[in-house]
Amino acid sequence: MVMQCSYFSFELLAEDGPARRGRLITPHGAVNTPAFMPVGTQATVKGVTPQQLREIGAEVVLSNTYHLHIRPGERLISKLGGLHRFMSWDGPILTDSGGFQVFSLAKLMEISDKGISFASHIDGSRHDLTPEMAVTIQQELDSDIMMCLDECIPYPAGKDHAKEAADRTILWARRSLDARTDDRALFGIVQGGMYPELRLRSAKEISSMPFEGLAIGGLSVGEDRETMLAVLDTTVGYLPVEKPRYLMGVGSPVDILEAAARGIDMFDCVLPTRNARNGMLFTQHGTLSIKQARYKDDPRPPDEDCSCYTCRNFSRAYLRHLFLSREILSSVLNTIHNLHFYLELMSDIRHAIENKSLDDFRIRVKEIYDGDIGLRSR
Amino acid sequence: MVMQCSYFSFELLAEDGPARRGRLITPHGAVNTPAFMPVGTQATVKGVTPQQLREIGAEVVLSNTYHLHIRPGERLISKLGGLHRFMSWDGPILTDSGGFQVFSLAKLMEISDKGISFASHIDGSRHDLTPEMAVTIQQELDSDIMMCLDECIPYPAGKDHAKEAADRTILWARRSLDARTDDRALFGIVQGGMYPELRLRSAKEISSMPFEGLAIGGLSVGEDRETMLAVLDTTVGYLPVEKPRYLMGVGSPVDILEAAARGIDMFDCVLPTRNARNGMLFTQHGTLSIKQARYKDDPRPPDEDCSCYTCRNFSRAYLRHLFLSREILSSVLNTIHNLHFYLELMSDIRHAIENKSLDDFRIRVKEIYDGDIGLRSR
Repeated sequence: MVMQCSYFSFELLAEDGPARRGRLITPHGAVNTPAFMPVGTQATVKGVTPQQLREIGAEVVLSNTYHLHIRPGERLISKLGGLHRFMSWDGPILTDSGGFQVFSLAKLMEISDKGISFASHIDGSRHDLTPEMAVTIQQELDSDIMMCLDECIPYPAGKDHAKEAADRTILWARRSLDARTDDRALFGIVQGGMYPELRLRSAKEISSMPFEGLAIGGLSVGEDRETMLAVLDTTVGYLPVEKPRYLMGVGSPVDILEAAARGIDMFDCVLPTRNARNGMLFTQHGTLSIKQARYKDDPRPPDEDCSCYTCRNFSRAYLRHLFLSREILSSVLNTIHNLHFYLELMSDIRHAIENKSLDDFRIRVKEIYDGDIGLRSR
Repeated sequence: MVMQCSYFSFELLAEDGPARRGRLITPHGAVNTPAFMPVGTQATVKGVTPQQLREIGAEVVLSNTYHLHIRPGERLISKLGGLHRFMSWDGPILTDSGGFQVFSLAKLMEISDKGISFASHIDGSRHDLTPEMAVTIQQELDSDIMMCLDECIPYPAGKDHAKEAADRTILWARRSLDARTDDRALFGIVQGGMYPELRLRSAKEISSMPFEGLAIGGLSVGEDRETMLAVLDTTVGYLPVEKPRYLMGVGSPVDILEAAARGIDMFDCVLPTRNARNGMLFTQHGTLSIKQARYKDDPRPPDEDCSCYTCRNFSRAYLRHLFLSREILSSVLNTIHNLHFYLELMSDIRHAIENKSLDDFRIRVKEIYDGDIGLRSR
């Protein structure tokens, strides 16, 4: 069950119900799925060096086309040898299309079938982004996996708005494929808000096009988990089994576990990195807010069963001191720990699928889990 | 020529005129001198992990008693196994006495022969610091090399003020020795402002006491280099040859080279780490302000002959992008480079002393050096 184009392929290695254990092959190496992609917005995963990322076990990173287009610009990055060389990450890179950030960060946005016009959140300068430009920019960046420009809607959104956006995303998907001038991998994006029939239609249309992978966008935008999983349940069955499936911007450990159980292969989220900088650590026993007074003289590492650099070397008391002292090392050590937690979670999920025990794993997690977003069990 | 106490010794291995190549032996390992001590104010060298510090080649770090006393407190650090374990640095640590910071950072300071009373710069809480307390705090921190509390004066300072402070520092030095309850190394500090006769007297008095090392304080406080070197010339000859000599808070690469040539063995300075965070990089061809537009698309590393992690992996264009984007990684990579530059400079100085070629090394540096604080040559 292999989908092959010159530079990209996806193999399914094992299944456990709808859940899949697979492997992406990209021009910059292999990625075991289900995979979590640390977010490297501005050509750096905030707080860690590429060497530390490798040590943590990251196999792929995501970078943001919107941010890199605004600063320093894809032309500059291309001139310097592409994004891998620029940021010194020789593993695979998935780039988003810039759509989500234009809708969430940019100012004075105007949208038409042609594309989007907006003002930079950095200096107010005027920019355009069309589906064609999004592909060109990502090619210039030397992305391993490009994403189509899509129209992102707020939550909640009316059905007419959701339909218009989903239709435009389909229109743009075709134009993105036409704009591609090499056989670099390009993923289409399913939209449709929280409306099952729109999701269905979008899934069928996008799936019918010759993309190397399919993404589900517009989830984890404020809806509750049940709503998100219901949309996922509606959508996933219509995605071709032989192509990788990417749930964009999701999510908490439990979100990821639930989505992987439904057949999702790829994830990205700022949660581990952003929360690290805010002093929130993921552990096997729930989340931990390192600034709390109860950790003042706690000699234990954040997670006693964790093998990351942070847990092998530092106490909660020290990490609390660093956080309260606003030291750079606070963000660094917390980020190392949280990313390690996420990548270990993915490894646990992959092993559970191989052993056909993902349901047991989910049940074990839920036995301990009590609404906290951070818990996992082995 | 070995000065020995149970836990600390200093060996002189080679000399080149007044310059000395030596080795400190501490309870946490050896330090080759002349040595540069990266500054780890709040129990962390800002921006780098202990692992990175080791990779850069640091053999000893300095930490600040004032900061640690205020937050998190020496009691807490002691309870957690001491400063080495707290910050996960198993190499030697020199702690200052807190004096310099009390005079430069604290508010509402009152000084008497008894000690200093001041308000914390963090929360305004009232604290006392006496020579006895400074020793007790440093013992609790489990310092490898403790410093006496000294009275630091502003620059310029009148002779009466300088004399009073130097006399008080001598008084406090005796009391510091009496306060020590174990045979941990303790260094005395020579003061006396820019007045040769005060420096002379201070050097003789402090040298006559049974310290394991001697420090020169109150330099690099705003005076020009000639003035500083004149004071050094006056002072160094009166320090016992068999004990290590530490020039506190100094300095630029050229300051260090000039002082090492005059027989100084130990240095510390925030210049490499603080300037790194401000985007100023030291190179063999002078300093480099990474934010400048001329580095916008410069594919070269900061220093083409440098072997540090930053120079092996990243371009000036990328480092400029990180700096302008205010990314954490900017501080991290710049700090790694600048500390590596300083530690390589010390290694070059040590080799030059071994080869009796320190004068040639100084001349080569001065041929290229043109007033810029950052230059060195090999």
